[in-house]
Amino acid sequence: MDLPLNVLPAKTDGRFPGLAIGTSYAAGAGPAIQPKSPIDGAVTAEVGTASPDDVGKALEAAQQAFLKWRAVPAPRRGELVRRIGNLVRENIDDLAKLVTLEAGKIPAEAQGEIQEWVDVCDFAVGLSRQLYGLTIASERPEHELVENWRPLGPVGVISAFNFPAAVWAWNGMVGLVCGDPIVWKPSEQTPLISLACHEMVLRAAASMDDVPADVSSVVLGAADAGQALAEDPRAKLVSATGSIPMGRKVAQTVGARLGRCLLELGGNNGMIVTPSADMEMAVRAIVFSAVGTCGQRCTSLRRLIVHKNIANAMAERLKKTYATLPIGDPTKEGVLVGPLVGEAAYKQMRDSIAQAKDQGGELLCGGDRLESGAPEGGFYVEPAIVRMPAQTEVVLTETFAPLLYLLEYETFDEAIDLHNGVPQGLSSAIFTGDMREAMRFIGPAGSDCGLANVNVGTSGAEIGGAFGGEKETGGGRESGSDSWKQYMRRTTSTINHGAELPLAQGIVFGE
Amino acid sequence: MDLPLNVLPAKTDGRFPGLAIGTSYAAGAGPAIQPKSPIDGAVTAEVGTASPDDVGKALEAAQQAFLKWRAVPAPRRGELVRRIGNLVRENIDDLAKLVTLEAGKIPAEAQGEIQEWVDVCDFAVGLSRQLYGLTIASERPEHELVENWRPLGPVGVISAFNFPAAVWAWNGMVGLVCGDPIVWKPSEQTPLISLACHEMVLRAAASMDDVPADVSSVVLGAADAGQALAEDPRAKLVSATGSIPMGRKVAQTVGARLGRCLLELGGNNGMIVTPSADMEMAVRAIVFSAVGTCGQRCTSLRRLIVHKNIANAMAERLKKTYATLPIGDPTKEGVLVGPLVGEAAYKQMRDSIAQAKDQGGELLCGGDRLESGAPEGGFYVEPAIVRMPAQTEVVLTETFAPLLYLLEYETFDEAIDLHNGVPQGLSSAIFTGDMREAMRFIGPAGSDCGLANVNVGTSGAEIGGAFGGEKETGGGRESGSDSWKQYMRRTTSTINHGAELPLAQGIVFGE
Amino acid sequence: MDLPLNVLPAKTDGRFPGLAIGTSYAAGAGPAIQPKSPIDGAVTAEVGTASPDDVGKALEAAQQAFLKWRAVPAPRRGELVRRIGNLVRENIDDLAKLVTLEAGKIPAEAQGEIQEWVDVCDFAVGLSRQLYGLTIASERPEHELVENWRPLGPVGVISAFNFPAAVWAWNGMVGLVCGDPIVWKPSEQTPLISLACHEMVLRAAASMDDVPADVSSVVLGAADAGQALAEDPRAKLVSATGSIPMGRKVAQTVGARLGRCLLELGGNNGMIVTPSADMEMAVRAIVFSAVGTCGQRCTSLRRLIVHKNIANAMAERLKKTYATLPIGDPTKEGVLVGPLVGEAAYKQMRDSIAQAKDQGGELLCGGDRLESGAPEGGFYVEPAIVRMPAQTEVVLTETFAPLLYLLEYETFDEAIDLHNGVPQGLSSAIFTGDMREAMRFIGPAGSDCGLANVNVGTSGAEIGGAFGGEKETGGGRESGSDSWKQYMRRTTSTINHGAELPLAQGIVFGE
Amino acid sequence: MDLPLNVLPAKTDGRFPGLAIGTSYAAGAGPAIQPKSPIDGAVTAEVGTASPDDVGKALEAAQQAFLKWRAVPAPRRGELVRRIGNLVRENIDDLAKLVTLEAGKIPAEAQGEIQEWVDVCDFAVGLSRQLYGLTIASERPEHELVENWRPLGPVGVISAFNFPAAVWAWNGMVGLVCGDPIVWKPSEQTPLISLACHEMVLRAAASMDDVPADVSSVVLGAADAGQALAEDPRAKLVSATGSIPMGRKVAQTVGARLGRCLLELGGNNGMIVTPSADMEMAVRAIVFSAVGTCGQRCTSLRRLIVHKNIANAMAERLKKTYATLPIGDPTKEGVLVGPLVGEAAYKQMRDSIAQAKDQGGELLCGGDRLESGAPEGGFYVEPAIVRMPAQTEVVLTETFAPLLYLLEYETFDEAIDLHNGVPQGLSSAIFTGDMREAMRFIGPAGSDCGLANVNVGTSGAEIGGAFGGEKETGGGRESGSDSWKQYMRRTTSTINHGAELPLAQGIVFGE
Repeated sequence: MDLPLNVLPAKTDGRFPGLAIGTSYAAGAGPAIQPKSPIDGAVTAEVGTASPDDVGKALEAAQQAFLKWRAVPAPRRGELVRRIGNLVRENIDDLAKLVTLEAGKIPAEAQGEIQEWVDVCDFAVGLSRQLYGLTIASERPEHELVENWRPLGPVGVISAFNFPAAVWAWNGMVGLVCGDPIVWKPSEQTPLISLACHEMVLRAAASMDDVPADVSSVVLGAADAGQALAEDPRAKLVSATGSIPMGRKVAQTVGARLGRCLLELGGNNGMIVTPSADMEMAVRAIVFSAVGTCGQRCTSLRRLIVHKNIANAMAERLKKTYATLPIGDPTKEGVLVGPLVGEAAYKQMRDSIAQAKDQGGELLCGGDRLESGAPEGGFYVEPAIVRMPAQTEVVLTETFAPLLYLLEYETFDEAIDLHNGVPQGLSSAIFTGDMREAMRFIGPAGSDCGLANVNVGTSGAEIGGAFGGEKETGGGRESGSDSWKQYMRRTTSTINHGAELPLAQGIVFGE
Repeated sequence: MDLPLNVLPAKTDGRFPGLAIGTSYAAGAGPAIQPKSPIDGAVTAEVGTASPDDVGKALEAAQQAFLKWRAVPAPRRGELVRRIGNLVRENIDDLAKLVTLEAGKIPAEAQGEIQEWVDVCDFAVGLSRQLYGLTIASERPEHELVENWRPLGPVGVISAFNFPAAVWAWNGMVGLVCGDPIVWKPSEQTPLISLACHEMVLRAAASMDDVPADVSSVVLGAADAGQALAEDPRAKLVSATGSIPMGRKVAQTVGARLGRCLLELGGNNGMIVTPSADMEMAVRAIVFSAVGTCGQRCTSLRRLIVHKNIANAMAERLKKTYATLPIGDPTKEGVLVGPLVGEAAYKQMRDSIAQAKDQGGELLCGGDRLESGAPEGGFYVEPAIVRMPAQTEVVLTETFAPLLYLLEYETFDEAIDLHNGVPQGLSSAIFTGDMREAMRFIGPAGSDCGLANVNVGTSGAEIGGAFGGEKETGGGRESGSDSWKQYMRRTTSTINHGAELPLAQGIVFGE
Repeated sequence: MDLPLNVLPAKTDGRFPGLAIGTSYAAGAGPAIQPKSPIDGAVTAEVGTASPDDVGKALEAAQQAFLKWRAVPAPRRGELVRRIGNLVRENIDDLAKLVTLEAGKIPAEAQGEIQEWVDVCDFAVGLSRQLYGLTIASERPEHELVENWRPLGPVGVISAFNFPAAVWAWNGMVGLVCGDPIVWKPSEQTPLISLACHEMVLRAAASMDDVPADVSSVVLGAADAGQALAEDPRAKLVSATGSIPMGRKVAQTVGARLGRCLLELGGNNGMIVTPSADMEMAVRAIVFSAVGTCGQRCTSLRRLIVHKNIANAMAERLKKTYATLPIGDPTKEGVLVGPLVGEAAYKQMRDSIAQAKDQGGELLCGGDRLESGAPEGGFYVEPAIVRMPAQTEVVLTETFAPLLYLLEYETFDEAIDLHNGVPQGLSSAIFTGDMREAMRFIGPAGSDCGLANVNVGTSGAEIGGAFGGEKETGGGRESGSDSWKQYMRRTTSTINHGAELPLAQGIVFGE
Repeated sequence: MDLPLNVLPAKTDGRFPGLAIGTSYAAGAGPAIQPKSPIDGAVTAEVGTASPDDVGKALEAAQQAFLKWRAVPAPRRGELVRRIGNLVRENIDDLAKLVTLEAGKIPAEAQGEIQEWVDVCDFAVGLSRQLYGLTIASERPEHELVENWRPLGPVGVISAFNFPAAVWAWNGMVGLVCGDPIVWKPSEQTPLISLACHEMVLRAAASMDDVPADVSSVVLGAADAGQALAEDPRAKLVSATGSIPMGRKVAQTVGARLGRCLLELGGNNGMIVTPSADMEMAVRAIVFSAVGTCGQRCTSLRRLIVHKNIANAMAERLKKTYATLPIGDPTKEGVLVGPLVGEAAYKQMRDSIAQAKDQGGELLCGGDRLESGAPEGGFYVEPAIVRMPAQTEVVLTETFAPLLYLLEYETFDEAIDLHNGVPQGLSSAIFTGDMREAMRFIGPAGSDCGLANVNVGTSGAEIGGAFGGEKETGGGRESGSDSWKQYMRRTTSTINHGAELPLAQGIVFGE
């Protein structure tokens, strides 16, 4: 695949920059890296990385940019995002190509990911004339009580390989509108799309005269760069997407300095299928949720909880459908299942299947690496389904691969208990035609996840709602609804415009 | 002072219980304590304490209560809080008496604290028919997108001696309405008022037939009880009020288990007084903010930043006013300044004054312990003012006592820089007659605190606004506005009621 | 029935006052009236009435009270409402008794009506610390954009006999909290409960020192009093509940002076029952909705739209249930169906049944006046069901009596068309177990009513939601949600605190 | 001036169409009109008009389009508006040219008007993923309470000559996003810009495959076309901007059919200037507000209320500034004051000045028609200032011309009384440096207008706030904030997903 150089910064000494602070690109003081495409294991490019020290430089530049950016009216900040959105629309094919190259997604999903960026731009532009605070009825005469939301400061974004553009876009577009510069530590797997994203911001910023370019920076690098970001008090918010152990680390590091973090960690997403479900729709949703992005979405379906009366039929149906799934090089027309990100993922999948069998599971289909029909250097696997007699230990952990556990339930309460009986809490779904079941599932004693869908799969959220999860998923919310509040600081002001000084709660002090 | 036994549970073996789980009182497995009243150093009562193990019991009971409580409609939960409010109104004198006894507050302030409880009851009752989620426009035909807020689970509350009832009331009344049982670890200094608070809940609960009594529990104890609360995953939210070091500990502990916390930590609250200020009002506000509760509010005024043209006049005026402050036994009519909580606080104040002098400060007045005119066992001090040539190190830390630093500024920008130049970010104020200064102070480049008042002192917030602060203050928000959201979990649901299964972002998968 | 004199003002010359302006009661310059109880047609009391001129006096007093009341902080206004709520709780039996006497409701429903008042008090108290306006991101540097909600002025309330207390309470409790005095023109049928309601306000007001008593007044009288209220520009809002012709009149009158009105007019409420409905629940809901308050609620069920496959079964079941309904003196234990309000209502019911038969309907049951077993002077009828072959003309109009039309449908679209094919748009319901039908019913192409319930009858709304309807129902919304905004005026303020004067939309004018 | 034909539809028989229903253009059954440009009185074009019958056709087409449009997801509706916005950006010069030609605005203001359209597009696009309803805590177990906002139906827009594009854009862009087709009756003075606006919608609609073109139509015509629109029940909302008498008519007509209207009528806008005001800024704001658009904005400044100590100085200063105002052909570089719309306006101005003198006023400057230096056929006047001894009758009415009354005040209360002492309530401003005055002005006892600015003139609102006014201004709100709710219908739904049927208010009926 030819690199779409027109959306990328220039190389220096044959190497893409590892550090981008506004318009200033540098190799970065860290070691160079040579990420490999999941498609065929070929090196995509040589890229520099940032050292922890470089991270500090980026944050310092962001802090300086912040002092200007916070004074730019929010609708002007929205204008920047609107222009970014237009540039992204124009370059959607090239940007999607990089997502395919570095993350291995099929083009439809890669384009879908970039479309999320476009969508969140539209949303954030609208937001830029809102950012609503409240005026509140004060208990004291001639007093006003008011809450304002003000820019927070530099935001550190740590993202993972599987949504190499959208996660940053969610944070970045909203953060920019909120008045915050963004310092981004992407996955080492996906440096090029990161640089391209940054380029879009730079180009939009260059078309306006009141945007400090340093509102965007990228620090490529390994875990130590992320750690440097988490430790630095200049990063007023650290928004981290990735594994649960990574999240724990970030939470403790940021907690120790009493900073703010926004965590989107692992899911172990379940779907309940009840007897009244529209089976045709359910199967389509299961397949997209379980094998889309080769099972490597944080919202991928991992646990299918089916009523015992329809479990056998469901198993048969899924086996039949899985048997026909086109697996292979994602750039090939018609392919739906691309590669795993790399060997470790493949091993984890194999191990999990082995454990599942040990714990009583029956492998219904899949699990093997493709021997032919796909590029050799990539890890292409047949999506697997394992029917489990119970929700055993292996089912309680997230395996980041197209591995689906099939469980049975008898009563609806049992289905809910199974569903909620894992430590993660990101996405969930029910397929049912019954309004009571539907409402119970989204009710106070229903799914304990951040996302709880009805007759919609677990993956593929719209940007208008708040995205994120509970329990070990980390509790953060990104994208729509009131997620923007996390990117701002709130002041509550009582304003006395009278000539008296009454105290709250009617206290009389010394008169 | 006679104990108001009618608001307290019975003693067993001469000792008040250290563990209260709903209606079940026990000594607790921890060692007995003998807290002393700040008024005279006399032991107020012998009280049991809970062991870390007891904390687990309380949380387990809370979890069981939660399963029932979350299914009780919110307006019914509001009815519980309404009845609590009525009981508190009826018993306000006795409850205030305990606050005075254990925390040393003058009656006006003790009553004010209880009044906050009453106010937050009214607010929470109204909230119980709101708890508004959103319906959102979906991008897909025949889909609904909706956010619901559901009960979260047991809430652990850790509170400090200086607001021994109100902080719990803020968390508890809102938490109860949100469907969450409350497990409270109060200060060891103030066990009796804690037990009385719990009693009010029990009595209100007993008057209804659908309230599990275990929605309230109290675990008296030392730091290890608090630590047990912070560690336990059953405490879905840990709301902690107290010192910054304590907060760091809680943030890390809760972060390690990816739990949720709400921190209200130290302030180092400043007030800017500009030349156009109404001096009469400013002085009144300064005095109440700086010496009220003997300078032991988290919102107490600690730094006074005065324009250089009026600094001398202000210094004189304050000295004169301070000289007339009635200090002494808070139960005595007319007294405005009661005791410090104990010897350690007194030593810290003395040390800070000494350091301030070393760092160039001039002691304008105060700082001595009263030699006569106050009960002997208490630590009664003359509120102090130290005029500082610059914002030196000692000024950057919070001294929990009536010690006010006076600083000068020349330009408004300088005033803001001084003001924001400390690591804490709770409360702040400006006194000015100038609308530009007023607006700049509460604007994006103004005060970086959670509370930013105009012509109102730093202390004494109304319950209708969100209360809390930024930076090392910890970022939590309690009481009014949308603070309730922290006590609930949010689900975002996409509901498909059509016969098609369109994917978000217009993705086409395999058709 | 003995009058509960303790909740009523004193008589003068054997007559209850017809004009109450705050604490000042007078006979009123209109003719005396002698309303009759629907129970037995006996005169309940002799009562004065207000002349149009008296209405002007009440409005003038309200306007003067407004100038003070608007300056009282909203939470204090909430305290008034809280105290009213407590008085209502204490006097609920006596207040309900008056509702029964004057409107003929059975005690359970009369108490339910008073309970609505209690509920709306709780809600309004909470509201009194909210009344949230917005702060908005301005497009200009150093500008703030903010919306505040301020008290509006006197509110005229016109209410009908069937909810003689609750409608006023909805308007009044919210209006008072919003800072508006209330001038009430109740139905001539129900003067006593009106006076009692006013008394509760007076007594609560008397317990506070900052409430001008003239925030409440009652002008008993006929249509000319209502007309005077509608015409007077001092009535900043006219909230009118009643018939559609009355509403048209009010809308035109208030429109001519460019005033604001809030209309709650007739409904012609329908329920769809689909094959998957829980029949047991559906029947219970139908019966309560259709015969509760003897079919004289604005939300009473008038049209039952049943799938053809279950229509016969439904008809049989309803006939059986209707046959056992206890009809008679509402004060008698066990009675569920009390009297019509008077002879005109009875005639209208009879006429409608006759027309329905003419238009092809089959009378399934009911329609006769009771010959025995009920007080003679009252109009007690057997609730009627008429099965209609189509939605003919008579079905398109509201008959304010327990007359239910039964219609059949074949496809769901047909059901919706039938449902929406009437000019009124207040309340509606569906009974179904099917989540798609449920969601379609409440969706954009579903019920066009203000209230659209699922597995809940058409009548009996909670106070937390906005209550009201579309089309000829008049479009107003009362009670919960954001209904309060109608009782306030909004100001949008742009505040410039900089030294420049930039124009919106970037206009440059003469520089 | 050459007509920018590329933004206009084709002529037929030498005439522009008078009726545009989606893509279908027709002459219209009304008489042809020949509007004259205010610039020189020359006929701009011959244009057809619609008959009342044509209005019915447009509404019928709109109603049919509505049935499709309401089912298109709101974010897709937003996409239409986004594309409209882009087309407007591309054609801003041509569109502004038409505004100048037909309304006589100077190019800066004409562009500013089109920019408002662009801005409201951005806002509405964001809104298209919001349109937030509420989920509400229900008082019944296993019940959900929810409010949804659904498309309303065809919206009739009646607009005036002075904002020939923006007023429609405010209504139209928000209405389209809300799911409502728009039927527009513009001023007879400005048919061409109306047709061009419609063209932009058509072209954007043509670029999408799910937009029924009939969501937009234009019915040119006289008052009878507007009346037909107001009367027709298919126009679910009538949004009318114009004179107070027109508004009264619309309010009564729409009221008679119990429809919904949104009125933006006359203003009589005042500004208070206090001694602490920044005089330089105040003068600039006064001049732009009073003479911008030749005093023909609904928000034009008409009453200047100045503290007596600075009144003389202000008068001198304004006279000096007015003397230098470049008046004349608006297309000429540097001109700030263009023509009045026509002779009637000129006569009204002259008459008002005469009356003002009769009522004691002193003409400080202006009032004469330009004898030279401007195109002959236009009505160019010198902006006038009349100093009034009191707020006499002529001051109480709106003269739609650059005529400013100067009044003095002594106390701040007096200033407010003067300010509020007129029947209109649109826009208002204060210039002051005093924060108490600023806050009082926007407070509950301050300005009674819908817009109340501080150190910002009366005209030139941002689109993010709600725009509109109180009293005879009609009470409607357009553009930002929650104005969109007027374009939708709300349903409040109670959803029972349990197996019980509890009644609200705890009523027990027959069990």
